[in-house]
Amino acid sequence: MAESFSEDTRRKLLSVSTATLTTVLFKRGLRNTFIGGLMPLNAQACRMAGPAYTLRYIPSREDIDHLGVFEDRLHPQRRAIEECPPGHVLVIDSRSDRHAASAGDILITRLWKRGAAGIVTDGGFRDSPDVAKLPFPAFHRGPTAPTNLIRHHASDLNVPIGCGDVPVYPGDIIVGDAEGVVVMPRHLADEVAAEAAEQSLFEEFVQERVMAGETIFGLYPPAPEAREAFRSWCAARQKV
Amino acid sequence: MAESFSEDTRRKLLSVSTATLTTVLFKRGLRNTFIGGLMPLNAQACRMAGPAYTLRYIPSREDIDHLGVFEDRLHPQRRAIEECPPGHVLVIDSRSDRHAASAGDILITRLWKRGAAGIVTDGGFRDSPDVAKLPFPAFHRGPTAPTNLIRHHASDLNVPIGCGDVPVYPGDIIVGDAEGVVVMPRHLADEVAAEAAEQSLFEEFVQERVMAGETIFGLYPPAPEAREAFRSWCAARQKV
Amino acid sequence: MAESFSEDTRRKLLSVSTATLTTVLFKRGLRNTFIGGLMPLNAQACRMAGPAYTLRYIPSREDIDHLGVFEDRLHPQRRAIEECPPGHVLVIDSRSDRHAASAGDILITRLWKRGAAGIVTDGGFRDSPDVAKLPFPAFHRGPTAPTNLIRHHASDLNVPIGCGDVPVYPGDIIVGDAEGVVVMPRHLADEVAAEAAEQSLFEEFVQERVMAGETIFGLYPPAPEAREAFRSWCAARQKV
Amino acid sequence: MAESFSEDTRRKLLSVSTATLTTVLFKRGLRNTFIGGLMPLNAQACRMAGPAYTLRYIPSREDIDHLGVFEDRLHPQRRAIEECPPGHVLVIDSRSDRHAASAGDILITRLWKRGAAGIVTDGGFRDSPDVAKLPFPAFHRGPTAPTNLIRHHASDLNVPIGCGDVPVYPGDIIVGDAEGVVVMPRHLADEVAAEAAEQSLFEEFVQERVMAGETIFGLYPPAPEAREAFRSWCAARQKV
Amino acid sequence: MAESFSEDTRRKLLSVSTATLTTVLFKRGLRNTFIGGLMPLNAQACRMAGPAYTLRYIPSREDIDHLGVFEDRLHPQRRAIEECPPGHVLVIDSRSDRHAASAGDILITRLWKRGAAGIVTDGGFRDSPDVAKLPFPAFHRGPTAPTNLIRHHASDLNVPIGCGDVPVYPGDIIVGDAEGVVVMPRHLADEVAAEAAEQSLFEEFVQERVMAGETIFGLYPPAPEAREAFRSWCAARQKV
Amino acid sequence: MAESFSEDTRRKLLSVSTATLTTVLFKRGLRNTFIGGLMPLNAQACRMAGPAYTLRYIPSREDIDHLGVFEDRLHPQRRAIEECPPGHVLVIDSRSDRHAASAGDILITRLWKRGAAGIVTDGGFRDSPDVAKLPFPAFHRGPTAPTNLIRHHASDLNVPIGCGDVPVYPGDIIVGDAEGVVVMPRHLADEVAAEAAEQSLFEEFVQERVMAGETIFGLYPPAPEAREAFRSWCAARQKV
Repeated sequence: MAESFSEDTRRKLLSVSTATLTTVLFKRGLRNTFIGGLMPLNAQACRMAGPAYTLRYIPSREDIDHLGVFEDRLHPQRRAIEECPPGHVLVIDSRSDRHAASAGDILITRLWKRGAAGIVTDGGFRDSPDVAKLPFPAFHRGPTAPTNLIRHHASDLNVPIGCGDVPVYPGDIIVGDAEGVVVMPRHLADEVAAEAAEQSLFEEFVQERVMAGETIFGLYPPAPEAREAFRSWCAARQKV
Repeated sequence: MAESFSEDTRRKLLSVSTATLTTVLFKRGLRNTFIGGLMPLNAQACRMAGPAYTLRYIPSREDIDHLGVFEDRLHPQRRAIEECPPGHVLVIDSRSDRHAASAGDILITRLWKRGAAGIVTDGGFRDSPDVAKLPFPAFHRGPTAPTNLIRHHASDLNVPIGCGDVPVYPGDIIVGDAEGVVVMPRHLADEVAAEAAEQSLFEEFVQERVMAGETIFGLYPPAPEAREAFRSWCAARQKV
Repeated sequence: MAESFSEDTRRKLLSVSTATLTTVLFKRGLRNTFIGGLMPLNAQACRMAGPAYTLRYIPSREDIDHLGVFEDRLHPQRRAIEECPPGHVLVIDSRSDRHAASAGDILITRLWKRGAAGIVTDGGFRDSPDVAKLPFPAFHRGPTAPTNLIRHHASDLNVPIGCGDVPVYPGDIIVGDAEGVVVMPRHLADEVAAEAAEQSLFEEFVQERVMAGETIFGLYPPAPEAREAFRSWCAARQKV
Repeated sequence: MAESFSEDTRRKLLSVSTATLTTVLFKRGLRNTFIGGLMPLNAQACRMAGPAYTLRYIPSREDIDHLGVFEDRLHPQRRAIEECPPGHVLVIDSRSDRHAASAGDILITRLWKRGAAGIVTDGGFRDSPDVAKLPFPAFHRGPTAPTNLIRHHASDLNVPIGCGDVPVYPGDIIVGDAEGVVVMPRHLADEVAAEAAEQSLFEEFVQERVMAGETIFGLYPPAPEAREAFRSWCAARQKV
Repeated sequence: MAESFSEDTRRKLLSVSTATLTTVLFKRGLRNTFIGGLMPLNAQACRMAGPAYTLRYIPSREDIDHLGVFEDRLHPQRRAIEECPPGHVLVIDSRSDRHAASAGDILITRLWKRGAAGIVTDGGFRDSPDVAKLPFPAFHRGPTAPTNLIRHHASDLNVPIGCGDVPVYPGDIIVGDAEGVVVMPRHLADEVAAEAAEQSLFEEFVQERVMAGETIFGLYPPAPEAREAFRSWCAARQKV
Repeated sequence: MAESFSEDTRRKLLSVSTATLTTVLFKRGLRNTFIGGLMPLNAQACRMAGPAYTLRYIPSREDIDHLGVFEDRLHPQRRAIEECPPGHVLVIDSRSDRHAASAGDILITRLWKRGAAGIVTDGGFRDSPDVAKLPFPAFHRGPTAPTNLIRHHASDLNVPIGCGDVPVYPGDIIVGDAEGVVVMPRHLADEVAAEAAEQSLFEEFVQERVMAGETIFGLYPPAPEAREAFRSWCAARQKV
């Protein structure tokens, strides 16, 4: 699936904000696309775009979820780290529960080393001070020290999940910036990226005008004169 | 799997309370077995015991979850109703979200007619006034009118789920009474049922004594004399 | 405005469930129409349908909201009770806060005596045991004893409000049953009522079949044969 | 301390509503007196008034809170049941956590047999279907099966506590009705009871008038004529 | 109204902390003056003081709240941005819901350019990374990308609102610092500012002493000797 | 008690993460040891380890909790600040309520000056921008301006408490880092510190390998070869 996610689209998605993307998706009738309440651990390394690879947790049970489980190479959390394809974002359904960690420093480092595009949980990560130093996009609800076994049992890989009340299907395109994380259906990615890039250009133009003291009336949204001015602005820009 | 759930165990589980069962499970190190905050719709028909058959919802998406989906006979919610084996309890993971219904009157009636033992959601049911008239154990967090499509997408059948933060594996034994719903691992059902039945008998004895004005000290938990008295009480009882 | 709410539509709305209404509204793209988490105080008197008359509370302030305020005949809470038109439902925005009462026994009795169709708050009512004895539809989140002044300041009458996160515009049609309360735009009331009545008839037919042991596949939603059977069932019914 | 809680005050408090009491306390500057969100298990036996005897729970710890602890006669939960003075209300600080039970059937029966006036927790009780059959005022947030050890460690007896975010000092007067539970400082009980009884009488008069079709303007609160009418009404009443 | 908010008071309010202001307001019987849980987007530009100009959101509705609404120059959100008087703080009632943005980068830039003193919402702002770069006080509950239309309908300008459960009347004085936002009645602003400035001076004195190793007993609150020492300290200070 | 907390154990605890500590405690059956949702005010000064000295708040009451109470040298909050032994951590039970401050700048400065190891509340601190500048470990749920009297009444010193749903007994060892705060029984401190130090060393080794591109399979947890490699790594290290 990853092949069909073009480098051009990826580049565009990395250049626009999650805010702009949610608006473009809203125009297509999709309202529930932003995973609210998450934050990047490293604000300097939070831009990410890639297809979703998912991990699903259910609540843990004392007799099943002891430290010994990690000896098993088939343990889904460990497999997720070693099998998430390069360029993909590992998205974890932790039932929005941050009483225990969804992952920690070592696993996230390994995921980064393997070339993943990022990691997202609707719970929390442990070793968060160290994770925050990696040049790797990681988003969570907040820090949490306890091992995942206290609350989470890794159940499945790459099935549809909910993450922070947003549906995430394997292969959905996940984009992150300092504001948070947006989820979009794979088949819309190209057109959404293109429209968002255009919209971002327009907003740059608007912002210049507003900084220059102009009113938003007739400008945002644009009346015919503002549209014309935008065209000239774009033309002038391309010359440079 | 259902075959190995003996009629004797079922009968015992129907005669003891969920409170007693949680204590017996606690003795075996299992602390998270009661699905908190649920209530039976029909207090007159809330005793149930049977293996779990599960349905998993994820958050819905506008372009996927429209009314047309129910035309598909493979829709997991509809299959759950028609495929849940007789004697089983259909347990639904609704992510504890009751903004939309997990099921309604017609589907629940059908499930009852098919011989299921009960239905449980950590969300809510619609048509709840009608569901409450069925002689069928149904447990939810509270009534809710909207169709499931507004919030829920039926994703899988009979996979491990969380229900109200409690892990539920297919085949786990689910017991309900007026207090709520308890979940126990299948392999413990026989011994837990037996111990709970005994414990219930003892608590009946204690309750008689307390009603007669006795102190709980030395009685609950029992000192040697109280144990002896209990044995006599049991013996006397069996004679009758 | 009340004049244009026809008696025929009112009768139909009183005969259908809030569950059916939310589905009919969902077909028209309206997803957020059910005020979740409310319950009728008197289950025997919970059917209601009428246009909304609204009251808006903001948080109270110690120096403004003392018992003396009720001496003022212009106090919006008291005016709401005396000015809500007959046949209308008084809908109160209490910011979903039930730490203090939205209204109590005497005011609700007066509202009933004046011919209102019902009262709804997303907070709680006080004197709830007495309110529960009135043959008057009243819906709240749960009982609460303290006077509204502790948390609520009555601010406006008949402005657009939110009630339990649902938008309510003055004149919107409010329908209640034992499940809860649904809100619909006034201009849709006639067509929604008609479609819901029809849908209810169909569901009655389906329920009969399901009670007779039929599968829901091909029946709900109906395949052509089931549609035909429904037509015959309707025809037979009308003869009686 | 119990001696100074007069029978006359107790009788008056049992005859007025918690709603009226919160208003009388509000006049004295006390706003946070109602324990919100509680419900009586037995609606037929929910009137109670008596001084508070308190039990404080803290979160439990696995190595300390095992079933063996109940062997100890000094265990504070068990001592609470056996030492709460007759006529008193046992009020439990469960940190508003109903994941585990604050008490169950047998202990509550014993407490009732010992002559306590009632029991209140801001958590939940187990064996709630049986507790609901006792003619004994018991208030909680909702049913819960698990033993208290799963979440609660009984720490102290008769210290100041919070119950549902309301401060409760040992000896405070606790009053319950179908609406919930109110807490008042001991030294105010006599005057609050007297004023509330008078206020209740007035509200009875108002309710009669409102049932007869009268407006609340000038009546509630009363203008001079209404005051006069009330005096006549009282006089007429006393003659009977 | 803005005229009567003196420059002297504004300067004083900018020099004291919100913590000190809440204490001074508490002395006057006002307990609910701090909007909890908000944070400044730009910690370097969070000091603000000015009269409130308010915007009220209600929940949005799909058929009313589409992107076309912004074409209308009377749209209340856009009017708020263009009409909030210079020196005022725009305070937004978003029902504490940050699922959608209360405003974004361009509008907030325009508000700043127009000379407003700041902006406050009990929801969230979008484009938060860009907003955080403006030298303009903006306070919210946290970042959120989606357009306001997904959850919010702009309903009214400059009416009394609740913001984070605190009442805000148009013209109330709003003060912000790195800790959060405090609201005070307009007529108290002068005296509260004066008393807070004095209290701040005293706390500076105390802090010096505590840094020097002194106990807080007799110092905070001050015994007569400490009061005397404070007077000398003030006198010495003024000489410099 | 403080004497028996060895300097060696303290040093080890300061060198390991709270994440590692929770795992070591989990191995001993303790699952509920991390106080979730807290953050250090000063990320540069958040390492702390010391025995707990506790302060318990209950909800405040208007007639008892006025500003005058601080005149009393026996006020428990003030005593806590002046009596918490050097090297200890003051842990405050604020019922996870940050509507009012648990303490402020001056008191925390004094506590630091007296040699305490840190301060923890499950509520919030006021004057947080100033507290954040102290080189002193302070952990809270978030900033809050209002004086504690608005919500909290200081009730007891050095009794068992709950802090953020975690049990804390006086003398328990409290450790903090940038991730949060962990609580451990005093008698386990030495062995837990030793095992955690060893575990930290191993994780340092693992992290080196992962940074070098190695898979986690066979490494974390370690297969025999990895154990052997770790031993060599340790030996090589000690030579340096």
